[in-house]
Amino acid sequence: MLFCGISILDENFNLAHDMYVGVQGDRITYIGTEEPEQDFGRCYSGKGRFMMPGLYNSHAHSPMTLLRGYAENLSLQDWLHKKVFPFEARMLGEDIFKGSKLAIAEMLRFGTCSFSDMYYMGEDVFEAVAQTGIKCNFSRGVTVFDGGRYESQPAFEEAEKLLKNHHGGADGRFKLDLSIHAEYTSNPSVVASLARHASDRGLNIHIHLSETKDEHEGCKERHGKTPAKYFYDLGIFNSPTTAAHCVWLEDEDFDILFENNITVAACPASNLKLASGFARVEKMFDLGLKVAIGSDGAASNNNLDLFTDAYLFAILYKGVSGNPSAITPKEVLKAATRTGALAQGRDDSGIIKVGAKADLIVLDIKGPHMQPVHNMLNNIVYCARGNDVCLNMIDGRVLYEDGDFKSLDIEKVSYEAAKSTEAILARL
Amino acid sequence: MLFCGISILDENFNLAHDMYVGVQGDRITYIGTEEPEQDFGRCYSGKGRFMMPGLYNSHAHSPMTLLRGYAENLSLQDWLHKKVFPFEARMLGEDIFKGSKLAIAEMLRFGTCSFSDMYYMGEDVFEAVAQTGIKCNFSRGVTVFDGGRYESQPAFEEAEKLLKNHHGGADGRFKLDLSIHAEYTSNPSVVASLARHASDRGLNIHIHLSETKDEHEGCKERHGKTPAKYFYDLGIFNSPTTAAHCVWLEDEDFDILFENNITVAACPASNLKLASGFARVEKMFDLGLKVAIGSDGAASNNNLDLFTDAYLFAILYKGVSGNPSAITPKEVLKAATRTGALAQGRDDSGIIKVGAKADLIVLDIKGPHMQPVHNMLNNIVYCARGNDVCLNMIDGRVLYEDGDFKSLDIEKVSYEAAKSTEAILARL
Repeated sequence: MLFCGISILDENFNLAHDMYVGVQGDRITYIGTEEPEQDFGRCYSGKGRFMMPGLYNSHAHSPMTLLRGYAENLSLQDWLHKKVFPFEARMLGEDIFKGSKLAIAEMLRFGTCSFSDMYYMGEDVFEAVAQTGIKCNFSRGVTVFDGGRYESQPAFEEAEKLLKNHHGGADGRFKLDLSIHAEYTSNPSVVASLARHASDRGLNIHIHLSETKDEHEGCKERHGKTPAKYFYDLGIFNSPTTAAHCVWLEDEDFDILFENNITVAACPASNLKLASGFARVEKMFDLGLKVAIGSDGAASNNNLDLFTDAYLFAILYKGVSGNPSAITPKEVLKAATRTGALAQGRDDSGIIKVGAKADLIVLDIKGPHMQPVHNMLNNIVYCARGNDVCLNMIDGRVLYEDGDFKSLDIEKVSYEAAKSTEAILARL
Repeated sequence: MLFCGISILDENFNLAHDMYVGVQGDRITYIGTEEPEQDFGRCYSGKGRFMMPGLYNSHAHSPMTLLRGYAENLSLQDWLHKKVFPFEARMLGEDIFKGSKLAIAEMLRFGTCSFSDMYYMGEDVFEAVAQTGIKCNFSRGVTVFDGGRYESQPAFEEAEKLLKNHHGGADGRFKLDLSIHAEYTSNPSVVASLARHASDRGLNIHIHLSETKDEHEGCKERHGKTPAKYFYDLGIFNSPTTAAHCVWLEDEDFDILFENNITVAACPASNLKLASGFARVEKMFDLGLKVAIGSDGAASNNNLDLFTDAYLFAILYKGVSGNPSAITPKEVLKAATRTGALAQGRDDSGIIKVGAKADLIVLDIKGPHMQPVHNMLNNIVYCARGNDVCLNMIDGRVLYEDGDFKSLDIEKVSYEAAKSTEAILARL
């Protein structure tokens, strides 16, 4: 496939106009201002279009689409204990599969090419990923609610099974990460054990970190240290780690994350909706931390359109820092793409570059909300929404184009998710 | 036109399903669960659709679409003085017309039926409103930059001319409000004069109020009182007033606004992007203040999709108040519709009710991001975006449907706005 005469976000995250981009197999093999001599097959006209890397959703709980709109306008404790946990306790494998598939449909529609998912029953998420062509780093969040060790055992076993059966599966699109859900749902021996597992097996780690004030202050009471220090001391940060939220970090925590090369997955929509607090993302950028963007689950967002999250990311942390020149469009676009890819250990992805994986999206930039064009990067970050995505290509395969989902039956996916939801509610 | 078997947001802002809604002329004349015997002409199937009142954008500067993406990531002073003011100084009447028309196209696309605009050269905004079928309360913002009175004279004269020629024009769709731009761009004698003008003529007023900390604290230094007290003492609040932003209100200011029945136009996107601060909207609702939603200009938003602003409104003030149960979906939907209509003095609008103006929008609720449906109101507020609007009817006329703009040539509008922008830049 050859994209002809198209504006692109180049490998330095600058604009380049009237470019030719050729895709062969799963790779970008040509980028230039001249039409290549080689035959790339289908020619895609770039008129009124803009190409950029597909988006990386760096913190998701994809099956939670089934809870979208279910638990609203509640305190965090009521949200969790009266609604979310009881609902989740009734979810079966088929529900996980259907909820995840609905999430994937939505992500494909709105330009996401890969997501970092933390949930359970990963076998069913794997099936959804394998069938639909999206990419996913899945982690089975280990939790120890009663302070004992035995409850974590099934999670370790599930992760071990996923590692054996599916890590690197679906043509490398599915990867297993390991996960401690959070400090407050773990104990030190389980954390240390998971840290060793990850290190021994060379796996990445995905955690929740200092999402709420209660969690952060509670950790200090329980352990005499912040969650970041707790995880550091127990060896978690010996493996490449994505830390979601990071709302309540203290000065020393920023240093720990920086020194250990941790990627923060900022979740601006979820933090606002659950009133969890305001992450100091401007400071993260100032300190050189790696910052990516996550949607969190659909029960606390509620839309998996990562363009909206990127827009929020672009404006919220200006407001929080009191500095309207903080967080540039280029920083936003990198956070939503390349930084997320690197956090997933996909070094050849999240960038429009010869040799990179052909994970790219095309936006229709002709809508009235995208006019006029003083600087296209500004319009992409501050004006575009997921609906402007008109093509989503992953590993060289077009999975969404102009309303057409190539790898799934959207009506069936929506219908089955609704049916699953009804069945879960009937079991409550 | 008869909408058949459609879910609607009823006059109490509750859901009603499988309804028939009949429109004759510019009014809703039938709502019921039974198919009416009377012939309403075209039957519109409500399957997979949701009807609600059209949105009211309660604070806009519509011609600023031409500055969309022009002045980004700058401090407020640089934004204003180095970019916005010089650009605006080169805008001619035809630019105002074309910029406003682009804004209207975008608003029609994304479900807005009326906007409260503060700008200058209202004659040209009137033309755009008259041609396109949207509604507008326009106010010519009076400014006195040099402390003298004479600079305000042309603004008074322009308003007087608009009052004479266009107030109630375009079949009642265009109304003139009066405006003091803000405390810091006025002086007491001009404010008192405008207050008398408004009161004498029975006109509404539109002001900026306590948008930035500098403005708020500066007013206290200049006048020994807050901007709200300043405007109150000078008689502004004797007329129905929309006060935009209201970020830095003090406790007594809330009381003044409440006692004078002022409508706050909260502008969450603009306040974040320009780092102006966080309005205490939860407190406004607690105190019973009237709160509507504004986009502000496209240079500080940058998208005129009011669904995004409503979403931000729904989640931001949860975050700011620390209370995830603050600001219910019903409050959000009222703020975005009925409250805005009442602030514009359009008592028969902003509501789906027999006898009300047929200003209504229909959303396609079949997208993957709108599934499943636990409670449609939650999905409308937290998941829907302007792109889900598939029909926009104003005064009984369908002005947008399924990609088709009925009252304007969208390609021409975009092209001419781009040309105007180029010409302005060439004059800089």
